Amino acid sequence: MQLKDKVEKILEKVKHASRMLAGVSTKNKNAALIAMAKALIRNARYILLCNARDVTAAKRKGLSDAMIDRLKLTDTRVKAMAESLRSVASLKDPVGDIIKQWKRPNGLLIKKVRVPIGVIGIVYEARPNVTSDCAGLCLKSGNACILRGGSEAIHSNMAIHKIISQAAAKSGIPREAISMIDVTDREAVELMLKADNFIDVIIPRGGESLIKYVAQNSTIPVIKHYKGVCHLYVDKYADLTKAISITLNAKVQRPGVCNAIETLLVHKDAARKFLPDVARMLADAEVELRGCDKTRKILRHVKHATEKDWYSEYLDLILAVKVVDSAQEAIDFINKYGSGHSDAIVTKNKKVADEFLNKVDSACVYLNASTRFTDGHEFGLGAEIGISTDKIHARGPMALEELCTYKYTITGSGQIRP
Amino acid sequence: MQLKDKVEKILEKVKHASRMLAGVSTKNKNAALIAMAKALIRNARYILLCNARDVTAAKRKGLSDAMIDRLKLTDTRVKAMAESLRSVASLKDPVGDIIKQWKRPNGLLIKKVRVPIGVIGIVYEARPNVTSDCAGLCLKSGNACILRGGSEAIHSNMAIHKIISQAAAKSGIPREAISMIDVTDREAVELMLKADNFIDVIIPRGGESLIKYVAQNSTIPVIKHYKGVCHLYVDKYADLTKAISITLNAKVQRPGVCNAIETLLVHKDAARKFLPDVARMLADAEVELRGCDKTRKILRHVKHATEKDWYSEYLDLILAVKVVDSAQEAIDFINKYGSGHSDAIVTKNKKVADEFLNKVDSACVYLNASTRFTDGHEFGLGAEIGISTDKIHARGPMALEELCTYKYTITGSGQIRP
Repeated sequence: MQLKDKVEKILEKVKHASRMLAGVSTKNKNAALIAMAKALIRNARYILLCNARDVTAAKRKGLSDAMIDRLKLTDTRVKAMAESLRSVASLKDPVGDIIKQWKRPNGLLIKKVRVPIGVIGIVYEARPNVTSDCAGLCLKSGNACILRGGSEAIHSNMAIHKIISQAAAKSGIPREAISMIDVTDREAVELMLKADNFIDVIIPRGGESLIKYVAQNSTIPVIKHYKGVCHLYVDKYADLTKAISITLNAKVQRPGVCNAIETLLVHKDAARKFLPDVARMLADAEVELRGCDKTRKILRHVKHATEKDWYSEYLDLILAVKVVDSAQEAIDFINKYGSGHSDAIVTKNKKVADEFLNKVDSACVYLNASTRFTDGHEFGLGAEIGISTDKIHARGPMALEELCTYKYTITGSGQIRP
Repeated sequence: MQLKDKVEKILEKVKHASRMLAGVSTKNKNAALIAMAKALIRNARYILLCNARDVTAAKRKGLSDAMIDRLKLTDTRVKAMAESLRSVASLKDPVGDIIKQWKRPNGLLIKKVRVPIGVIGIVYEARPNVTSDCAGLCLKSGNACILRGGSEAIHSNMAIHKIISQAAAKSGIPREAISMIDVTDREAVELMLKADNFIDVIIPRGGESLIKYVAQNSTIPVIKHYKGVCHLYVDKYADLTKAISITLNAKVQRPGVCNAIETLLVHKDAARKFLPDVARMLADAEVELRGCDKTRKILRHVKHATEKDWYSEYLDLILAVKVVDSAQEAIDFINKYGSGHSDAIVTKNKKVADEFLNKVDSACVYLNASTRFTDGHEFGLGAEIGISTDKIHARGPMALEELCTYKYTITGSGQIRP
């Protein structure tokens, strides 16, 4: 009961701060972002000290090396956090944009105006940089945020939060506009996820199990950034040179990210020519292949791909390969096994290309380009809070505009409804 | 276990149908809508017969008169259902619109394209017309729908569903694109609300308790059309003649709908002049007033408004009245007690007007006009599935465009990420 009161008290203040923040000018918000960046640099030593406590505890608890790597901060990483805040300051403010306006026959002027959502809840894991990255994006889009990071990073997160919220407050931002639930108790998250009176949307940042947990326990709308099981389909009519370079780029350039491909689909008429060449290049890049039966007739030393492989987000130098009879089979396969993130076709045939672009039900569908471009910066949208695999509200890169909602303002001269 | 299998089987087919429906042409969809309208008229007698069974059962069960009125169909109501389908046929198809497109420095052409959401789940109560109204809107926006109405209306709903889905199928629409869960078991709704593999969004249509139940039990995104606790604020600088006519219109013209006002706020400097006049007109219209202390100093015979009144959606000829000291107090009051639906100010002062339009956190904020205009038709958007009081995805009138999502298609010539 005491914890409930504590969490509610924090949330009430955030809600109140969100109302005030919505009216803060762009200039003011940008000044705050710059001040926050400077404060991070100025207090880097303090942050690293607090972070060291978390890292020591994590080692004592025997957390995995990968986990500790995500948790650990360095001077370079603190600088990157500051840089990220500066870059958000340089982005266009989405708040107040008139998305559309029109006049009705009765003289009413209707404006659809972009406005902040209100309070955004961020639930995340062990990466302390999420604290400042998300706070910066929320602030620029006029939203108050309530942050709840993993217990492993509690000292790092509290330090970063203290520094940036103080710096923001000195620049005229309501202090509680960047708030944190600093209770490591799991019950605090549960309370947060049911607080639909105070929080307008929850964005989980982390692995699949966190996202599932949040989606299943929240009564607040959740925008999910699930996994990326991305496909490249090499069509019968593909330019095979381009197909090879796109395959390599989409798999190898950075295999650990959500927009890298996990499955290669090849039209049967292209397989015999394409697969040996691409397999050689992929072998040079140390990529392990797992193939369907038809693939293994061409590439004899390749492991057998199981049903589980088709669903897998390897995030590693592994690629599943399947030979298909038609573009339609590729489309159906992607819609069945994919995660609705990013999928690509290589083809010179316009009809096949259009079919693929229309029918693949994913956030980003590519023709003759690498899936690796699914990214706020690459799209020209600026920093993003994630890549939404949901269809509601935001789909694909979720940048500043997608952190907003809209309202209608209707101006009349005494109109009443007949 | 058997019920679970049955529901899943239905949902799998809807999902499959949704993929096919997404590619159906506008012409085809419109032909289907007209055929559905004709089929309703042709089978009116059958529908009324099935409806009579529901009405008899409802009377036997002792349901309220209001409930029975909502349940009961007549020739006129069947005609209205058909008319509504025809009018949806005449609306612009939102699918395929290019919302935005731009070229990146590397030559990639990015298009943001409007596409159907996929499968929309509609959970509703005793109004059988919702069956065809929602099916029509979903069909036009390229979405498959899975309908689940209240058990009181089961025979009516099954009849309507059979007629319209058959008519649609004859016009080339996949038959399962309009599907119904015809199991009255409550467990079926629970299964539906957890079926996030098959359903993309749930829209509950009905009273507050249904919406709360759905929001709290669904793992699928829900778009809520909650209640309308709408306000009219008569400012110090109001044109009082306009203020009277807007008050009357917003309260009296149709008190039982969500965009009617429930609370009147009056600036203290206008109260002494405005309240007696408006009270007289409201008394003529048989409106019961409930006032704050200051109101009751001016209107001595008015009942006392309690805290509960400020939160109430009366949907009736009752109006709560409060005198406020400033526009800011009115704004804060609306943001605290309102439901984020529609709120209006009457003022001639531009500065006060702008403050109000900016700071009131509602879907529709009016200046010098009646809140009764919050409606898809009145906005020029066409038929709506409801008025969203959510901030995520759709806010305010939710018409065909809001029943869609978007995807990005990215066209290149071999681009890879450096």
